[in-house]
Amino acid sequence: MMTMEALYGGKGRALIGSLTFSAEDIIRFASDFDPQPFHLDPEAAKSSLLGGLCASGWHTAAGWMKCFVPYWIGEMKRLAGEGIAAPKLGPSPGFRNLQWLKPVYAGDTVSYYVTFLESKELASRPGWRINTILNEGENQTGETVIRFESKVIEFP
Amino acid sequence: MMTMEALYGGKGRALIGSLTFSAEDIIRFASDFDPQPFHLDPEAAKSSLLGGLCASGWHTAAGWMKCFVPYWIGEMKRLAGEGIAAPKLGPSPGFRNLQWLKPVYAGDTVSYYVTFLESKELASRPGWRINTILNEGENQTGETVIRFESKVIEFP
Repeated sequence: MMTMEALYGGKGRALIGSLTFSAEDIIRFASDFDPQPFHLDPEAAKSSLLGGLCASGWHTAAGWMKCFVPYWIGEMKRLAGEGIAAPKLGPSPGFRNLQWLKPVYAGDTVSYYVTFLESKELASRPGWRINTILNEGENQTGETVIRFESKVIEFP
Repeated sequence: MMTMEALYGGKGRALIGSLTFSAEDIIRFASDFDPQPFHLDPEAAKSSLLGGLCASGWHTAAGWMKCFVPYWIGEMKRLAGEGIAAPKLGPSPGFRNLQWLKPVYAGDTVSYYVTFLESKELASRPGWRINTILNEGENQTGETVIRFESKVIEFP
């Protein structure tokens, strides 16, 4: 089995997937989790600070995970095809410095990227590692709309 | 109009609401955003690291917002009843150091709390402020399951 570091370190950023935020999807997510006028009502949103219907930041963040899961399944298959056992990833202990940099408006397409930053061995558990990954989402005009660093546990 | 700092500074933490994570809600959220076996399938979850069906961390995080929006609407009404215009809050620029400390299992109830930490004037926009708030979620046995600090813009 190769470590994430051996596989992805120094490789720059990888596109993990894209997601188009339809008005319907924005309103459905916001109705459940973030019922504010600029996430629910296109007319009310026009007179808000954001100027138009836009996705809840929590929706934009969850969209990263929506892309990462199938990306990682694809990576496991790709590596298996090359005879490499993919690193085993555990639950994430969290992340830091999430920034919502620009609104994601209805109809926008966000492309999500990951960049491997660093890996450390967990002193308490031999063979376990904690990796830091930079995650970014860009809209269709290349503006970064979301950025955060996540921690991913890797175990033997 | 009173500032958030004048209203909430030094007041300790406030309960903003509670949310019970049913298996159905966990599976619905995960099907859309985080389709991993320990979020989708009670049987498969038993043999995972987490030991049972549990909510996507993004679901636990969005649950905070689900509680905050009605809490804040209630606060605006409460303050209006006392003749106080509530602070105007803008979109959040992000947060830092989100920690998923314990799994949230099916049937768990998470109580979410906010604690006002600090407020700074935005040098670039007179009268605008940026507030830092500590957010925590505790399960029914008092274990902290999620913790993060968010930034909230306040404008005149």
